[in-house]
Amino acid sequence: MTAHRVKFDVIAEPVQVVTGTLLTEAAHEAGIDIAQPCGGQGRCGRCALQVVGGSESRSSVRSRSTLRLSPEDVAQGYVLACQAVVEGDVSIHVPPQEALERRLTTDRTVAEVQVPAGYDPAIDQTIRRVALTLTPPSMDDQTDDWSRLQTALRQETGIGELQVSLSLLRKIGPVLREGEWEVTAVLNLESRGQKVEGLQSPISNLQSAKLIDLQPGHIPADAPLWGAAIDIGTTTVSVWLVDLLTGEVVQQAAEYNRQIRRGEDVISRIIFASKNNGREEMRRLVLESINGLLERVVKRASSEWRVVDDQQLATNNQPPATNNQPPATNNQPPATNNQPPATNNIVKATIAGNSTMMHLLLGIPAESIRLSPFVTAVNHIPPLTAREVELAIHPEAAVDCLPGVASYVGADITAGALSSGLDDSEQVSLFMDIGTNGETVLGSHDWLVTCACSAGPAFEGAGVEHGMRATRGAIEEVWINSDTYEPTIRVIGDAAPKGFCGSGLISLLAEMFVTGVIDKGGNFNTSLPTTRIRKGAHGLEYVVVWANEGVNRDIAITHVDVDNLLRAKAAIYAGFTVLADAVGVPLETVERVLIGGAFGKYINVEKAVEIGLLPDMPWENFHFLGNTAVLGAYYALLDEKQRARIADIASRMTYIELSADNSFFEAFTSALFLPHTDMSLFPSVAGS
Amino acid sequence: MTAHRVKFDVIAEPVQVVTGTLLTEAAHEAGIDIAQPCGGQGRCGRCALQVVGGSESRSSVRSRSTLRLSPEDVAQGYVLACQAVVEGDVSIHVPPQEALERRLTTDRTVAEVQVPAGYDPAIDQTIRRVALTLTPPSMDDQTDDWSRLQTALRQETGIGELQVSLSLLRKIGPVLREGEWEVTAVLNLESRGQKVEGLQSPISNLQSAKLIDLQPGHIPADAPLWGAAIDIGTTTVSVWLVDLLTGEVVQQAAEYNRQIRRGEDVISRIIFASKNNGREEMRRLVLESINGLLERVVKRASSEWRVVDDQQLATNNQPPATNNQPPATNNQPPATNNQPPATNNIVKATIAGNSTMMHLLLGIPAESIRLSPFVTAVNHIPPLTAREVELAIHPEAAVDCLPGVASYVGADITAGALSSGLDDSEQVSLFMDIGTNGETVLGSHDWLVTCACSAGPAFEGAGVEHGMRATRGAIEEVWINSDTYEPTIRVIGDAAPKGFCGSGLISLLAEMFVTGVIDKGGNFNTSLPTTRIRKGAHGLEYVVVWANEGVNRDIAITHVDVDNLLRAKAAIYAGFTVLADAVGVPLETVERVLIGGAFGKYINVEKAVEIGLLPDMPWENFHFLGNTAVLGAYYALLDEKQRARIADIASRMTYIELSADNSFFEAFTSALFLPHTDMSLFPSVAGS
Repeated sequence: MTAHRVKFDVIAEPVQVVTGTLLTEAAHEAGIDIAQPCGGQGRCGRCALQVVGGSESRSSVRSRSTLRLSPEDVAQGYVLACQAVVEGDVSIHVPPQEALERRLTTDRTVAEVQVPAGYDPAIDQTIRRVALTLTPPSMDDQTDDWSRLQTALRQETGIGELQVSLSLLRKIGPVLREGEWEVTAVLNLESRGQKVEGLQSPISNLQSAKLIDLQPGHIPADAPLWGAAIDIGTTTVSVWLVDLLTGEVVQQAAEYNRQIRRGEDVISRIIFASKNNGREEMRRLVLESINGLLERVVKRASSEWRVVDDQQLATNNQPPATNNQPPATNNQPPATNNQPPATNNIVKATIAGNSTMMHLLLGIPAESIRLSPFVTAVNHIPPLTAREVELAIHPEAAVDCLPGVASYVGADITAGALSSGLDDSEQVSLFMDIGTNGETVLGSHDWLVTCACSAGPAFEGAGVEHGMRATRGAIEEVWINSDTYEPTIRVIGDAAPKGFCGSGLISLLAEMFVTGVIDKGGNFNTSLPTTRIRKGAHGLEYVVVWANEGVNRDIAITHVDVDNLLRAKAAIYAGFTVLADAVGVPLETVERVLIGGAFGKYINVEKAVEIGLLPDMPWENFHFLGNTAVLGAYYALLDEKQRARIADIASRMTYIELSADNSFFEAFTSALFLPHTDMSLFPSVAGS
Repeated sequence: MTAHRVKFDVIAEPVQVVTGTLLTEAAHEAGIDIAQPCGGQGRCGRCALQVVGGSESRSSVRSRSTLRLSPEDVAQGYVLACQAVVEGDVSIHVPPQEALERRLTTDRTVAEVQVPAGYDPAIDQTIRRVALTLTPPSMDDQTDDWSRLQTALRQETGIGELQVSLSLLRKIGPVLREGEWEVTAVLNLESRGQKVEGLQSPISNLQSAKLIDLQPGHIPADAPLWGAAIDIGTTTVSVWLVDLLTGEVVQQAAEYNRQIRRGEDVISRIIFASKNNGREEMRRLVLESINGLLERVVKRASSEWRVVDDQQLATNNQPPATNNQPPATNNQPPATNNQPPATNNIVKATIAGNSTMMHLLLGIPAESIRLSPFVTAVNHIPPLTAREVELAIHPEAAVDCLPGVASYVGADITAGALSSGLDDSEQVSLFMDIGTNGETVLGSHDWLVTCACSAGPAFEGAGVEHGMRATRGAIEEVWINSDTYEPTIRVIGDAAPKGFCGSGLISLLAEMFVTGVIDKGGNFNTSLPTTRIRKGAHGLEYVVVWANEGVNRDIAITHVDVDNLLRAKAAIYAGFTVLADAVGVPLETVERVLIGGAFGKYINVEKAVEIGLLPDMPWENFHFLGNTAVLGAYYALLDEKQRARIADIASRMTYIELSADNSFFEAFTSALFLPHTDMSLFPSVAGS
């Protein structure tokens, strides 16, 4: 046998190995510990190394599998150490582990939120903040305060018609006088119907607006002017705090919908809401969730803004102590103590959510949603105010509930169809929201069809014993060593593991299937030589993390959990197969698969295909988009044209009622296996 | 001396009297008791008799004075018995006393409210009630309830855009199902700005409307559909309940504004409202007044409507007992017990009132009204809902606060200018509202100027020890016998006297002046031979009614009362003299004097001129209009064109600020005498 020199860049001396030696073995020889979470099966991609040097060097290594590497990775000389054998002298770059992880995950993680290119609040935004200087009244000009304000506003902006609530009307006189006839107004421009061409230009003469706030003085241009993009999921509520001036997402927060204690799916929520005082309780619970999140994001953002503010004060050489004194010319006592809460800086909210969530938020009876013929009370909700809705933001804030399509295809899906770009492309795309309700949209620029199948909350980490949201401490990926059945995990944040988020569950389910911990029916194999498969309180389970210092009890996945996950993935897969069949578009002709859902940062396509959650297609066709509903709400919050586009999507979508479709139940039953009863649908899994 | 035969129609035999005998003496001779409340001074008109027969008969009686008779009376042969002497044979008709009173007062009482000629709710009214039959949803038509309702409404009426509150949106699904897809909607059509030409035609395609109510089933066409016309006076609050289908005023009620306990005039109310929780207390007090009146008129009207309803049921041979059972086809439990209150049948309210009252009703700070430069917070109040205002009518009801002109010329005056017809005539007219604030408008079709002088509440019966509103038991006219100083009174209703209303006070003041009980400065003459002038707890007073069975204490007018009345009448007179001077229109060229105010039924022009409250003009120039503010609100409630006319009046009126006008104080001082310092202004009083 020929000996070859293998030079690792992290070690001074090369090692000598014989032909056919795995790179993992060569590395071990050199004293380098290469991680192999999957046990050297070529499944985890964590052992990627880069062959450096010219084509000669590259041909000295033969790869048996590059399954976990992208074509770009391969072109750059990356190989999987556990799948590559040495056949000549070679130089190897060992990337730092973190660099490896980052690179590997890049094209499969949700992109950071980008402010839409060219966002211009003076054109796109309906909210405007305007500084006004009024002519003070005199004996020669006894015009009333409200007319005086409107005149100043008309002169400054050209707005012809101004609406105001009685509550705000009460404040106008005192504010004008406190500001000594200098004030700052916050307005919401009214779009006239769904057509918004007029908004392309700055404010027009004919435009009407609603006065949302009036504050004394000309307030600093960088003072907060916020909006909130909100998604009310059946399982998870998400809130983004948005700077309406820059368009930036200032803060994000999410938590479980507190309604979950009254039922995991929309049907049980509707039933609960229809009894006794259930409707009001449901409304209160989701309001608590949203308002808690709003307070949280504002608290975080306010502390940041105050820091800036204090610095500005320092630059002005005004020590904070003297700042509490009113200016000498101002005889009014300082307003101070009853200052409005910082949440009052949120002057607009745009809300996505499925139809049931929207009804329950607004206290609208939802019974008709679950009873044939399954109609909502309202799909296009009129403009509301925060006062009416009882959102804990500025009481006059505009609350825009995005439009839905049907009882089971709500505003979360119209918003998602927008933010995914589904409606804006010539390509036929499949968009799915992997959440509790499992809605799917198939279509393109020209047509859109949609359906919904109740998937349950498993992929949001609920309805699973150790499930959790994708926050710090969530296990987001799992590899199981196919020899030892020992797992390796990746946890979000630098924290002890607490449970599994959605991506962790997909990963775990796939690994258990591939390593034989469970069979294609989801049954545990108790004959394997591992103590991790055991009988627990809820039947058989696989222990992923043993209790230890940071973990106060074993973290396991149970048979019940597996069943829930199987049903969830089967419902989702059945939904889009039925949809594709219904419009006669074979799944394999779908050009893009756009996936939204409350996952962690990292989604493993391979594993999602392995369990039959996603159709078996080239990986590059998949695009993970994160929470598409809140993203769509964010776009609509910023730009009236995007808002109009969502209304257009809602009116264009054709809804297919699955309850009236026998083929759904068949497709669901067929999909209750790993990956599927019909393995011909999953050639890449069958062939591996 | 020649003897003459005088034949009274109520006595069989004629009497014989000598030439020059007064008819009162001839009647006495015949055994007929002719009332002479004024002591035979020709001032009260209560002794009017009719000379019957031809011209010969008429020439047999010579009248010394016909001051209290109208030209029509004289033409019909009426004479005052105390002023007519017999000069030949004559036949006399003695009218029954009640007929006399009714005839005498006819042209000086406020006309009954007439429904405006040609009122057509389908053209004039913004409120429409529409019966709708919807296509029920099915698996082939899963349109949401709200869209379904809008479609049905569009098909039925052509209304293109429908607004709804969140509260009402919550009801829609249940109501549609309870009514089995037959419902009755109540709408408020939106006028687009102040121009209302479009409303001339039935509902147009472009029209938008607000949904105010939705009820299950097609409710009977004669079921109540009410509006409320409301005037909030500083002293008196008036409510008219109006049938919007016929335009008829169904009920009227009025009571003192409960704010009166916190100050008699607007200034003291504003001061009270600016302290502590005063603003909220003021708002509550006036709401209590209005809401109490609303409940009262609805209770009365509902009992009437129920009577009709019960009769209908009887005709249908359905005994009331079986009526509680739902129809056999209806599986729903009867809604019954939590039925909305009858006040919910009021779906629109139009409110007049001075600017301070309007601010206090709405909880808008009113401080700027009393501080130079005297500006209101708002003159043109945007459309509101009863929910916002907390009026006890349908919570979605449209509340239309009529527009004012300035701090001291409010919506009561713009409404009054409309209902008086001031703005609609080529003639130059003087319009005055004899209430607490003493507003006056001078003008015509072409121009309008206005001012206000605080008159105080005396002419509304407040601020006077025994004052009261013009209700049952109020003394509305007084005559004092010039020989005995004994008074005769007329009381509203068949009741014991309780106190004086405004017209009673005018009458009493004039009688005291004419008979010398007081002098032109208002000082009591203690040397007269009567026990009725005495020293009371508050100085000198004149006792009108002694305590007796029905009257538990003496009813007197005090020196303080007289001073208050003098100041009130002086302020009013000074107001319109200054106004006339300011625009250079001599008072004597004014063609009409239009007088509004919360008087009783009967206003005695002669006496009002005698005390110098009204300018000395031919009586036929005076027109008493009652509460012109609530009348204007009533017109605006019925007809959008009248509403637009009020807005037009408000924008056209030029306001003259009396506080900036020294001549007002001079005019006021000059008018503090009976009738005036300058007697040349009152030739008819000087010459009598």
